[in-house]
Amino acid sequence: MELPPVFDRYRGEIDAELKSALADYRLPLYRMLRYHLGWTDETGAALPGSAGKALRPTLCLLACEATAGAYGQALPAAAALELVHNFSLIHDDIQDDDHERRHRPTVWSIWGKPQAINAGTALRVIASLTMLRLGAHGVPAEKQLRGLRLLDESCLELIEGQYLDISFEERLDVGVDEYLEMIEGKTASLIACSLALGAVLGTDDEDTIEALRRFGRYVGLAFQIRDDVLGIWGRQEKTGKPVGSDIRRRKKSLPVVYALQKAEGKARDELGAIYQGESIDDGGLDTVLSILASVQAKARAQEMADEYCARATAGVERLALSPWARRSLVEMACFLAGRDY
Amino acid sequence: MELPPVFDRYRGEIDAELKSALADYRLPLYRMLRYHLGWTDETGAALPGSAGKALRPTLCLLACEATAGAYGQALPAAAALELVHNFSLIHDDIQDDDHERRHRPTVWSIWGKPQAINAGTALRVIASLTMLRLGAHGVPAEKQLRGLRLLDESCLELIEGQYLDISFEERLDVGVDEYLEMIEGKTASLIACSLALGAVLGTDDEDTIEALRRFGRYVGLAFQIRDDVLGIWGRQEKTGKPVGSDIRRRKKSLPVVYALQKAEGKARDELGAIYQGESIDDGGLDTVLSILASVQAKARAQEMADEYCARATAGVERLALSPWARRSLVEMACFLAGRDY
Repeated sequence: MELPPVFDRYRGEIDAELKSALADYRLPLYRMLRYHLGWTDETGAALPGSAGKALRPTLCLLACEATAGAYGQALPAAAALELVHNFSLIHDDIQDDDHERRHRPTVWSIWGKPQAINAGTALRVIASLTMLRLGAHGVPAEKQLRGLRLLDESCLELIEGQYLDISFEERLDVGVDEYLEMIEGKTASLIACSLALGAVLGTDDEDTIEALRRFGRYVGLAFQIRDDVLGIWGRQEKTGKPVGSDIRRRKKSLPVVYALQKAEGKARDELGAIYQGESIDDGGLDTVLSILASVQAKARAQEMADEYCARATAGVERLALSPWARRSLVEMACFLAGRDY
Repeated sequence: MELPPVFDRYRGEIDAELKSALADYRLPLYRMLRYHLGWTDETGAALPGSAGKALRPTLCLLACEATAGAYGQALPAAAALELVHNFSLIHDDIQDDDHERRHRPTVWSIWGKPQAINAGTALRVIASLTMLRLGAHGVPAEKQLRGLRLLDESCLELIEGQYLDISFEERLDVGVDEYLEMIEGKTASLIACSLALGAVLGTDDEDTIEALRRFGRYVGLAFQIRDDVLGIWGRQEKTGKPVGSDIRRRKKSLPVVYALQKAEGKARDELGAIYQGESIDDGGLDTVLSILASVQAKARAQEMADEYCARATAGVERLALSPWARRSLVEMACFLAGRDY
């Protein structure tokens, strides 16, 4: 599945805004941020290209252009969203003890956890300061305050989700409902905020803002569930993760949560024992995969992703937007629910 | 030395504003914050009293009252400053591996480091949301944005100082200048911001705002240097720390940095060897204390604290403030440079 053209549309300006947002921060502390964002190696030497799809900035600019016909005024908000997302990744890698991200050593594995905590929090604060650049784009002060509130509230929901995710590690009785509550915070909230922020900067029509926020929430849920499917069955060369990697890390992702609820008797006991053990070997991985297959966990998870995608697109159909905007939003939803990387 | 009366003046309203700022956050995540702030025990049961002196809120309200004759409009900013300070304490305890703070187990030692990282960052975000309550006190949107910028910029400086502090751990060649740069970020910046925020909310006179910010910077430096003196020579029943506790933890506080620069020959080598070792025993502690005594490190550090106090009070003398305001600021400066707890 190809990346929808809307990602290319904004890419250059998103990168420029991000670089500009960090330009004044030259102390050694900030080297960790440039490294994490994929701009430099660990010595500070520049690297070509940029890391990640810039999903959240793209969604923000798309919502702004869809509602206002222009998107320049939303560039600082788009950059801030990417910085908040990356703050959460730096801290997430510390919390999960992950040594690699995007085929590179994580910040903490190079600079140590104490300094990586500083890097993450600094990035979070720079995100707020980046929002304050909206004034230079003519955004009125009241709207800037509303944008800051949206970003902070969704950041808190993100942390609430992260809290739940970590608290699930010790548990075998996590239900699908609790799982959904967790990804609602960890993933869907900032994606919904991306759409809402773009819409707030593009229009004063509250119904449209709310509809786009809801679209963001649905595609966020679909995106995370698809991510869970890829985390177990994704092909390594596409996702950068080995097959079954989320199982090896014993993450309570949707297919596993579903299987822990659905499996019965011996299969349930085996799955529970494997997820309570210290680590999972090749044999354990095969057992988990066959139990997931026996309850059709992959198909069931994908059905849920597709269902959220359908709700997202149904909402878009009802909005008074240009054919281009509507098509771009629908393409985005389908991509996020069905991507293979 | 008695706590100046201005601490009592605002205490009740500061506590009420802080409780109100956190009132809506009821998820288990936020239990860690109430515990850290001294409001509850680890099970969530209410505790009497409150933790800490609320230095930063008190300074903020004093600056506002000194310039405007009233301070109610600054209460959300005062609360936000205390929350930013406490975010930094939660993360600092993780980074330093400290098991105790204010005679109680630290957040991470109860809930684990991954969740304590979440607690600290959540508190930082709630601080920003608390600033947004200024609007309800009639503070214009532009001034709210200025306040948010001040708070975020000083928070970044705080993190820069924290970065330096951690980077000093591995070094023996830290100079007094570098030490001052570090505490300028780690401590003086948020204290300067406390005065600046209060002043911005109290007046439009930029000279007064800048003078009070500078006062804050000087008393912040004096406060941290006095803290360093107490961290080595403070009496346990007052500070809650055992005598020599900063030496046992091998902190590069001012007396030690000074001694590493001033000591010569065998004393210098011994000090270096002790600070590079794995831990410091009773004999090592005595050796360090006698080397510090031989270069008069305590007197020299206290002289520096007093010098910053003098610069702070000299600045206040030049300001057109009421006698009460001037006296309160001078009392505060003298207290911070000379307190014994």
